[in-house]
Amino acid sequence: MELIQVKEKERIDDLQIKEYRIIQKTDGFCFGIDAVLLSDYAKVKKNSRGIDLCSGTGIVPILMDAKYPIAHVEGLEYQEDYAEMAERSVHMNGQSDRVHIAHGDVRQVKEKYKRESFDWVTCNPPYMTGAHGLKNPDYGKAIARHEITCSLEDVVQAAKWLLKPGGHFYMVHRPFRLAEIIYTLKQYKLEPKRMRLVHPYIDKEPNMVLIDCAKGGNPRITVDSPLIVYNKDGSYTDEIYQIYGEMKN
Amino acid sequence: MELIQVKEKERIDDLQIKEYRIIQKTDGFCFGIDAVLLSDYAKVKKNSRGIDLCSGTGIVPILMDAKYPIAHVEGLEYQEDYAEMAERSVHMNGQSDRVHIAHGDVRQVKEKYKRESFDWVTCNPPYMTGAHGLKNPDYGKAIARHEITCSLEDVVQAAKWLLKPGGHFYMVHRPFRLAEIIYTLKQYKLEPKRMRLVHPYIDKEPNMVLIDCAKGGNPRITVDSPLIVYNKDGSYTDEIYQIYGEMKN
Repeated sequence: MELIQVKEKERIDDLQIKEYRIIQKTDGFCFGIDAVLLSDYAKVKKNSRGIDLCSGTGIVPILMDAKYPIAHVEGLEYQEDYAEMAERSVHMNGQSDRVHIAHGDVRQVKEKYKRESFDWVTCNPPYMTGAHGLKNPDYGKAIARHEITCSLEDVVQAAKWLLKPGGHFYMVHRPFRLAEIIYTLKQYKLEPKRMRLVHPYIDKEPNMVLIDCAKGGNPRITVDSPLIVYNKDGSYTDEIYQIYGEMKN
Repeated sequence: MELIQVKEKERIDDLQIKEYRIIQKTDGFCFGIDAVLLSDYAKVKKNSRGIDLCSGTGIVPILMDAKYPIAHVEGLEYQEDYAEMAERSVHMNGQSDRVHIAHGDVRQVKEKYKRESFDWVTCNPPYMTGAHGLKNPDYGKAIARHEITCSLEDVVQAAKWLLKPGGHFYMVHRPFRLAEIIYTLKQYKLEPKRMRLVHPYIDKEPNMVLIDCAKGGNPRITVDSPLIVYNKDGSYTDEIYQIYGEMKN
């Protein structure tokens, strides 16, 4: 049995899917429901090749490989310590044949990857611009939450470069930026084709939005029924159980 | 008592607000829930001056004046017979001091109105482009439903001309055009500030979207909780009763 290298201030969490696990920093940015919902929304094809931008702990590439019979997924992460930790998670799970974590900058994908070399791109980017919310005193967490090293436009521009014509870009973001998101996507010819708002409760404003775009698609979008996280009594809704339940297979 | 002039193939419907009524064509385009929800969503200020584009039967100007203590509302309608009929409804209701229906073309507002002369603009435009849905054999109905004489961009361009800086543009439309709508609004510096999706049932896709934009606003949008029209048993939800109930005062 191979030993797993876990560093100081790191912990291992069970992903409840195929016995996969993930290494996270005890005092760093940890994955949330956003990454789980994104990987569920991004229904990708068999034998497809994808890349996850702003990959952080590597949660999205790990889940995409766990959920779908893909050929390859690349995870691109700007922070070297996160990229190195994510690569250890991939190795720990025996996913190295299909999942690869790369250390690099979203703003420099043109130098790192060939144009139109992926079928799909996923991204759970930093949500806040300089003006929104407080900067995190921990620089690693701040980079994950604020557009310090990677703006919405950087991500969209990178996705456009990486995607094959007709390829899909899946993103989770905050609804308060929805107008900017749609405008930027359309500017770069990534046509929003499907969108789902995630509401904590049925009568509350949404706090997440899932978007599926097609490179060069026609301008017609399907807005899905709302995804509600909690019942009125605070328990998870059936749909959330279903999404997480799928992870237990 | 003044006689109301009702022509052949016209009927009078009770609006259940301040005993106001409206004349509609028995075989023409009649107002729907869209116009009622739009006038409810557009919460405008006391003594404000507004204009409704693509005014049709005049339902939106009539409701805006019935619901809010405004100074003036103009209704602009391309089809002369509809404009004339709407003006008769306004007269019948005794709203002529505040409501005026004009016959004219949205594409020619620059010749008809001074720049930045309104506090708000409302519009329930034709939803379908040439490519979507069948053209209506009745030309009057077709103009109301298809972008024959007035495209989304025509409406947005007109609203930009008519609005004072910081003025609001309220529109109801179909969600399948949401990406185009947001892109076009932002192109013309009408920043989407609030948006609400209207779902027939909680677990169904939305079939209407209400949007509130501010001319020259900052890019931050509030997505409201979903507006659900029917309960599971097919009865109206409390919120719909509340919106229509307000009309009964």
